[in-house]
This record gives sequence, C-alpha cells and structure tokens, in this order.
Amino acid sequence: MDALAAISADVGAITRVFMSPEQTRATELALGWMAEAGMTTRVDAIGNVIGRYEGATPAAKAILVGSHLDTVRNAGRWDGILGVVTAIECVAALSAEGVRLPYAIEVVGFSDEEGTRFGATMLGSHALVGDFAPELLRLRDSDGISMADAMRARGFDPDRIGEAKRSAEDFVAYLELHIEQGPTLQAYRLPVGCVGSICGATRLAVTLTGTASHAGTTPMNHRADALAGAAASVLAVEQAATASRGLVATVGKLAIEPGGANVVPGLAAFTVDVRAPTDGQRLQTLRRIEESIMAIASTRGLGVSIARIHDEPAAACSRDLQNRIDAAIAQFGLEPLRLASGAGHDAMVMARIAPMGMIFVRCRDGISHNPAEHAEPADVEAGAVTLFRVLKSFETRPDVLD
Amino acid sequence: MDALAAISADVGAITRVFMSPEQTRATELALGWMAEAGMTTRVDAIGNVIGRYEGATPAAKAILVGSHLDTVRNAGRWDGILGVVTAIECVAALSAEGVRLPYAIEVVGFSDEEGTRFGATMLGSHALVGDFAPELLRLRDSDGISMADAMRARGFDPDRIGEAKRSAEDFVAYLELHIEQGPTLQAYRLPVGCVGSICGATRLAVTLTGTASHAGTTPMNHRADALAGAAASVLAVEQAATASRGLVATVGKLAIEPGGANVVPGLAAFTVDVRAPTDGQRLQTLRRIEESIMAIASTRGLGVSIARIHDEPAAACSRDLQNRIDAAIAQFGLEPLRLASGAGHDAMVMARIAPMGMIFVRCRDGISHNPAEHAEPADVEAGAVTLFRVLKSFETRPDVLD
Repeated sequence: MDALAAISADVGAITRVFMSPEQTRATELALGWMAEAGMTTRVDAIGNVIGRYEGATPAAKAILVGSHLDTVRNAGRWDGILGVVTAIECVAALSAEGVRLPYAIEVVGFSDEEGTRFGATMLGSHALVGDFAPELLRLRDSDGISMADAMRARGFDPDRIGEAKRSAEDFVAYLELHIEQGPTLQAYRLPVGCVGSICGATRLAVTLTGTASHAGTTPMNHRADALAGAAASVLAVEQAATASRGLVATVGKLAIEPGGANVVPGLAAFTVDVRAPTDGQRLQTLRRIEESIMAIASTRGLGVSIARIHDEPAAACSRDLQNRIDAAIAQFGLEPLRLASGAGHDAMVMARIAPMGMIFVRCRDGISHNPAEHAEPADVEAGAVTLFRVLKSFETRPDVLD
Repeated sequence: MDALAAISADVGAITRVFMSPEQTRATELALGWMAEAGMTTRVDAIGNVIGRYEGATPAAKAILVGSHLDTVRNAGRWDGILGVVTAIECVAALSAEGVRLPYAIEVVGFSDEEGTRFGATMLGSHALVGDFAPELLRLRDSDGISMADAMRARGFDPDRIGEAKRSAEDFVAYLELHIEQGPTLQAYRLPVGCVGSICGATRLAVTLTGTASHAGTTPMNHRADALAGAAASVLAVEQAATASRGLVATVGKLAIEPGGANVVPGLAAFTVDVRAPTDGQRLQTLRRIEESIMAIASTRGLGVSIARIHDEPAAACSRDLQNRIDAAIAQFGLEPLRLASGAGHDAMVMARIAPMGMIFVRCRDGISHNPAEHAEPADVEAGAVTLFRVLKSFETRPDVLD
C-alpha cells in the first residue's frame, strides 16, 4: 500500500488518474507483485492489469477478484487499491501452500473507476464487460486532451478497446474487497462486513420559481419565496429518507437567485440524490419526494420543474457469495453484518456478467476520498483473511448456487 | 417625469448616479423648474438641489419637502423623482394662487439616496443633517475613482461638505412623497396612503457548520447536514415573521459547501433581514429567530455563529403630520390606510432634525428598482393633491403638535 501511495502526480498527496505516467508506474508495480505471487500477467486494451493463477484443471473458468488502481485527486491510500493488493496477497498465500482451486483465480486492477480525469466513471470494468460507450473517447480532460489521445499517448489504441471484453462464460464469480467509505462498521464495532447490494441511485434536478421582490416592502402573505419552498423541500427529502430503512437522500447542491440579502429569492435550484438497497424502495421514496415538492410548490404558489438526470438500478450481491462471506466472517466469532453499499463500485458493473460479492473493511469515521482516509492494519488483515476463506470455500463447494 | 427619465448614463434605461454628468443635467432641469415655480434656488455642498419659497414673513422656518434625484441602475421612472417633482408642483400651485404660508417651503432633490455608485446610501440627507461620515470620501466606485475625486471632477469640494449641514432650527417639518414600492395600497385598492413609520432593520449573517460526507455512504442518523439545518432555519424565520404583524423577515442569500450533488453539505451560510415598524417588535422577533436557529443547530449537532452585521432603528412619523395626511386623504372620501415603509428613505435621516411625514403613492404590483416600475397618473395626482392639502393645512394650523 505504501509503495502504491508513493506513486502520485501531486507531491505530498495521492493522485493517480487514467492514462497517466502514474498509471503506468502502478501497473508495473502490480504486474511484478502478480508475477511474484505465481500468476501469469497482462494488461488489457483499456489498461486493466490482470493476473491469472490457474486452477486444478487448465483453462478453467475463473473467479475474478479485484478493484481499481486509480484514485480521486488528493485521495486516501485505501480506496480501490486495498482490493487489488489483498487479492494478490490471497493468491500468493494459495500459491505458497500449493493449493489449486477447481477454478482459476484472476486478479484485476481496474485502470479507471473514479472517473477523475474524464468525468465518466468505471471505464475499466465497462470495457471488461463489453459495454464501454465509444463516444466517451471524445471526452476531454481539463487540459483539453481527448480520452482517445490520452490513450494513444500511453501506448493504447482506442480503436481496440473492444478487445478488453470478457464473456460471462469466463467467470464463475466476481469478488471485491473495499473499504466501507461509511461509518456503519465502526458504529457496530466490526472490522469487516458483507455487502448485500450496491444501492441504486437517482438524481433529480429541481427548480422552484417564485417572484423576486423587495425584502422590505413585500408583506409575508404576498411572497412567492423560492428559497422558502426549497427549504421545505429539503426537510421533506430528509423526512422521506429517514422513513425508509437503509435509504439515504441528500440535497447537496442548492443555488438561489438573485441572491441579494435584501431581495426575496425568485428562484431556487437544487439536486436530490436518492440511494437505496432495493429499486422498489428507491422508486417509492422518489415518488413521495416528488409529491411533497409538488405539494409545497402548489401551496406556496411556486412554479416547479423536476428532472431525473441520473438513474441507476441497484445491483444485488449473489446470495451464495454472501453466504460464503458471512461464513468466513463467522469464523472470527463475529456476527456477520449485512451492509448496503451507498457508493458505486466496479462490482456494480461486473454484476452484469458474473455473480458478484463484496467484502467491506471498516474505515475510520467513514472518511474517504480524503487524505484522512484510514483503515487499521488489523481490520485490513481481517478483510484479507475473509477474502482468503471465501476463495478457499470453492475448494470444497465449487458451485455458486444462485 | 419624462424629461428626467431621458437623462441617463445608459441608453434605453434610466441610470443617474452621484456626481455624474447626468446628475448635473438633472440638477439644471430641477433648478429651472424651481425658479419657474417662484423659488430661489441653490445647490448645496453635497449636490442637493434646494429651492425656497418664502413664507408670509421673511426668513421664517421652513417646511422641507422632497426626495431624491438619483437612481439605481436600470431604474424605474418614479422612485425618488416623483417626490421632488410633486413638491415643485405644489409650490407652483401655491405660487399661482399667491398663497404664502406662515412658513417658508423648501423643496429638496437629494443628490444621492440609492448609494448606486459608492455603496454608501443617503449621502445627500446625511450631509444635510450634518452626520456625513468623512471616511466615506475614500470609497471607490467600480472604476476605482474615489468619492472625493468624483466630487472634485464635478466641481464640488469634498472638504466643504460640512457647509451642507442645516440645523433643526431651520425646519418645522420634513415631508416626502414616494411610490410605495410594495403591494399593500394596490391590495387595498387605494391610490395613496399615510406612512406610520419607516421600519427599523437588522441583518444577521448566520453560519451553520456540520460535516461534509459521502451522500451514498452516510446513514441519515449519522449526518450533520448544514443545509438541512439552514432549511429548518429558513422556515423558522418565515414562521417568526408571519407571527408578527407588519414585520417582514427574509433569507435572501444562502450558500453551501462543498456543493457537490453527492456530498452532504458541511457548511451553510445565510443572511436574515428583519424589518419592523417598531423596534420592540423587531428585537423580539430577532430574539425568537436567534433562539430557533440555536435550537436547530443544537438538535442537529451543528456549529453555529450568528453575527448582526447591520442594525438600524425604526423612524416614527410625526403624529401631527400623520393626522394632516390622513385628513387630506379623507377629503377624497377614502379610508386612510396607515402603512409601514419597509424600504429606507431620506425621511429616516431627516427625522433626526425635524418632525417627519411620508405619503405613499400606489405603484403597480409593488415593483420598483426595475424598468417595469409604474404609477398611474391618477394616483400620482391623488398623491400630489394630498401633499398640497397637507401644505395648505399649515395656513390654518401652523403648529406641529407632536
């Protein structure tokens, strides 16, 4: 982890983005570790680093294990890379024991999950499952460099991204270990937990339109105050979310116009981000939120527009893999805790072609995407051991029973 | 009104700011009208245009009548100048009838009320009452020109502003006619109304501090959402204002950080503007608002700071002048309506040296500081006639009984 953390575009921080010199250096490091652990290695057409540890029979289907090697700007040292490093470590341990599973194990370090450089996220896993959208190649970074040109500059051919595609036939399962990036394990005093699903997410863009007027001369009962409507909406969002277990909803952006201290706001624009472990729960709460906002606008005489600008269904984890993870955690004598992942992960994309399971490792105060991100070594070990036990479980119970 | 509206720094709009060529042109126009109406005229050391119509005895105390000749940028054509033009018209009518009151009448066109150019407001009336703050001369306009230099460029000597000072002994009353800039007269279907007081105003700057965290991974019960606290505060402000008759309170500015759609807001900063006809009412509501915000912050685990960044006491209108205005309005067969002025006026400043009275004229939809500002000619006439009657009332009832 220290060696990877030292590879950064920003001095004194951790920043490692798609198709950067830092990606190349991290790739070389990971390839070396994979080889040391007894894997054959390669880099695919989108820059994913892939190592393969053969199973008991040649050319067997694989259990794919991994996470991403890229980071946000000024990142922590755990997000993503922990899942790659622990996967390599598990293979190294199996290799040291001379154990071969009924399946091959492939370890993947995805080249882009965060979308730091080009805005579009999970480029590595999208290419691997074969649904990379070619129009993304035209996206430009903050220096005006297109994704296609950035790939060429690092020796990749954007026209050959299709070659990174793998088939559902290649894999029996996808496993990902990741820091929780939330406070739940810490609150339950547990080092590790099993993810039940990755939340689906919807984002709304809401605009309320009232009448800007003089703060001194407009009586309270003559106002169409867009901010007052937005304030009632923010509380309605909070209330609807609190009423639905495991669901979260957030107003993270809010802007008002004209924005003078002595002017009643005539316009308020805000976002609503709703995430829930199940799609039914999310859609029900969304309906409730939208109805509340419409009612608030109507009562207050405000114009309203609500647009859904993003919609992503929940990805359920494989029941069989959850059971294996729970069993592995139970071996510590711990109560397995079923978590929903509020953040997106490569596992969401991988779920399209393989039964998917995720192990979460406790991180301090839930802080992530921040240099203060921290996981205790003992918790990291518990996570790695959990992952190792799950892999070993395939020795005696090869079928994924979903 | 048309002739003054034609004097503008911006083509197709009305913009006439302090110490501009437009001020000089408007001054010349007003001086001509004053002379035509039978007044002796002068321009004082801050650029106020002053005409004097002597009373029955020479060197009598004066009734000062007027408003301001400057405008906001892209202004309406009524705000301010209507009070100057109707005052001149009243004198012209008295002059035409050969009527001399027991007092002189002085008409004033203040050179700056809006503070458009230098931010500081009511420069003309402050100089006239003798409390112009000399440090204001160092203020710079958007071109970097200091107020002192701007005055010199138009032939004024900033060191002689003190000469504009008049004494309380000079005046028996100050009267100002102004468009309402609010919707109350329109709502009551009245062309004119009598102002009872100019509201005092307090402005608060409030900052709530929570914890910025991931919108997907932070459970609802683990959040310290600064925006949710601000939203509750906005509604508390509205509720406190609605509970206090005639008082208005506004959150006109609100900014949150970090402001990402997928981040729980860690900071919310907003203003609260409270205006009330009486200081007791304003201070009571302020206390209630401050207590509500503190309670909200405490319940939600947010840090809070509340600063009073502006505090201006209410200015009560003279009871005697109110009675005279009411009587003048009653002569139309109209029910006199007592209004509070939520906007500030030169009359606030003049109240420091003279009994003060204000007549409001209905304006369409309460719109002001906007090219759509409009007063019906019939309403303007009703206002002018009211002012004329009030002036005439001094013929038979010279003493201001306050």
